[in-house]
Amino acid sequence: MRVLILGGDGYLGWPTAMAFRRAGHEVCAVDNYLRRRIAGETNSDALMSNPLLPERAALFERLTGLKIEVAIGDCCDRGFLSGVVQKFAPEAIVHYAEQPSAPYSMIGYDEARATLSNNLTATFNVVWAVLEHARDCHIIKLGTMGEYGTPNIDIEEGWIEIAHKGRSDKFLYPRQAGSLYHTTKVLDTDLLWFYVRIYGLRVTDLMQGPVYGLSTDEADLDPQLMPNFHYDDIFGTVVNRFLVQAAAQVPLTVYGKGGQTRGYLNIRDTLQCIALAAAHPPARGELRILNQFTETFSVNQLAERVARVGNGMGLAVAVESIDNPRKELEEHYYNPVHRGLAELGLKPHLMTDDVVAAMLGEVLRHRNRIVVERIRPRVRWR
Amino acid sequence: MRVLILGGDGYLGWPTAMAFRRAGHEVCAVDNYLRRRIAGETNSDALMSNPLLPERAALFERLTGLKIEVAIGDCCDRGFLSGVVQKFAPEAIVHYAEQPSAPYSMIGYDEARATLSNNLTATFNVVWAVLEHARDCHIIKLGTMGEYGTPNIDIEEGWIEIAHKGRSDKFLYPRQAGSLYHTTKVLDTDLLWFYVRIYGLRVTDLMQGPVYGLSTDEADLDPQLMPNFHYDDIFGTVVNRFLVQAAAQVPLTVYGKGGQTRGYLNIRDTLQCIALAAAHPPARGELRILNQFTETFSVNQLAERVARVGNGMGLAVAVESIDNPRKELEEHYYNPVHRGLAELGLKPHLMTDDVVAAMLGEVLRHRNRIVVERIRPRVRWR
Repeated sequence: MRVLILGGDGYLGWPTAMAFRRAGHEVCAVDNYLRRRIAGETNSDALMSNPLLPERAALFERLTGLKIEVAIGDCCDRGFLSGVVQKFAPEAIVHYAEQPSAPYSMIGYDEARATLSNNLTATFNVVWAVLEHARDCHIIKLGTMGEYGTPNIDIEEGWIEIAHKGRSDKFLYPRQAGSLYHTTKVLDTDLLWFYVRIYGLRVTDLMQGPVYGLSTDEADLDPQLMPNFHYDDIFGTVVNRFLVQAAAQVPLTVYGKGGQTRGYLNIRDTLQCIALAAAHPPARGELRILNQFTETFSVNQLAERVARVGNGMGLAVAVESIDNPRKELEEHYYNPVHRGLAELGLKPHLMTDDVVAAMLGEVLRHRNRIVVERIRPRVRWR
Repeated sequence: MRVLILGGDGYLGWPTAMAFRRAGHEVCAVDNYLRRRIAGETNSDALMSNPLLPERAALFERLTGLKIEVAIGDCCDRGFLSGVVQKFAPEAIVHYAEQPSAPYSMIGYDEARATLSNNLTATFNVVWAVLEHARDCHIIKLGTMGEYGTPNIDIEEGWIEIAHKGRSDKFLYPRQAGSLYHTTKVLDTDLLWFYVRIYGLRVTDLMQGPVYGLSTDEADLDPQLMPNFHYDDIFGTVVNRFLVQAAAQVPLTVYGKGGQTRGYLNIRDTLQCIALAAAHPPARGELRILNQFTETFSVNQLAERVARVGNGMGLAVAVESIDNPRKELEEHYYNPVHRGLAELGLKPHLMTDDVVAAMLGEVLRHRNRIVVERIRPRVRWR
């Protein structure tokens, strides 16, 4: 299969590119280094340095003999993206090319505007490049479980049958997200669903939870092939922040009451999910939505787990509740369905203590590079 | 009250500006003539010529002694809009400033991109201008009944209580629109709802059906104060197209089976609705959604009505079904609630034969300006 990875320099993009290439597919990875630029501007650089995309691809080729094509450019530039799609003629496009930070999108006008414009325009351009040059191509779009928010009813897999006043119909499951970033993913879904039903595109929209992990079969070949690891308040997930705080021997900072519950998954499972989605494309005119996570944790449960594992490794890990910089429910019902990917064959890698210990061990090897001031909230929702 | 009208040169914008001014409010009307420019580019000019905004305002002032402020500029230009809001300090903003044509948004990439970018950016900039300079200001946003599409259940007023697996919660009523233009209004609603719940804005989102009519108390003062009347396939509504076809003695063109049913209203009722919404602002942090129409008609019912009235006026009016250029259900369930505006005090002006005859009479006075080639579909959805 010919697989185009948009956002190929990202935490998921690069491991996805390597995994598809190693599985025997032709791969082209596209990026414009937006995340690196924003991370630099906000003092949020990754813990380990990651080579640029062409260097990573060259190293991967030296180690495996397998070539990953690279194209550096902006998916918001129609001419560029359209040219890549026309030339590469992908059968699947994995679309990760979005500004991925919720706190960044909440800093102020400029950051909100950049997030809205970048994310919507990239998705719009993907739709049009496919319409014009690869009509049968399967778009695999990275959405987020955050699109659903935290409703008081069970979260279904993208769609819901609503019975109302004696009649019924099927609709997109209602979405209401907690940041402008997450809201752009809601708008993406609306936009994709419109173009799917009007023009008969094939789209898989993956409602993914927060991903953790640094180890994949290909990343393990060389430290320079490792995924990006951000641990700051802007680009770091809660798992990464806790791991780095444990390694730096500062308290793990729980936002508010810590009852915020989300579905998480191991990066190895993200790779499985994307591969399974690509191997089983939806029909033309179908928007298939899959909830992509393997287990749910509250923030308190994550803090307890990291603290337990850290203490077992001889670190003295404390946990502290701090004022929540976000506007979100700190205690809520949360029962999301996640059957679709299991039915396609997903075999989960769960967050065992060994998995946490391995991540913490990796972070400890880079302990001298930690900048503790980056971890506490620098952005507030109000 | 200080009322800022964005899109003040539009079919609804100008009559709204006059009506608020005549009711004793301070009014500033903003426009960048986007619609005039696009109408010119697509050979879709209005039937009657309408003076530019400063000339209309000057004429209105000569006739009534009442001054309407005018600011010519683009709501997508943050500096411009922010400056206007800071200077004028509105208590209510009526936001009509969007590319309003569904067919235009379906022509191709450039038109779709312009519609998406213009409409979302204008709404985004309104939100931020209010956040920064008029935090308590009531945003009255023009949405569309088209956001809901044609679901197989009753259409509620913006929100729906969903009971699901023994639990329940209230959500935005599911939306799925039939054109990219209508989809931008769905995205607007998502965006507004996000900023309302995070920052506590006051917003009324009006789900309006197609509006008809050329007569308002103020427009009737002088022919040069009349609202814009587009009758082509791109900017003309079905009512206007039928009126002009009847006047031109060419068959009324029904798209497909003609069972497409929508909620319509008289422009006089739009003015009432906007005035009622402004007089009763929602609480801070409330997104109030009102379905704004007074009666529903199928396309066939409209054709029959215009034909009957036209024949009664001595015209020989035929009705013809043509291949539907749009992708839409031509027969469907349609039962939308519309209680909120009635509860606020709306007194409907219904589409009687006299009302149709008055509109047709006005069109007949300009019969020599009709360009029949503009009326049949020039844009197809597929």
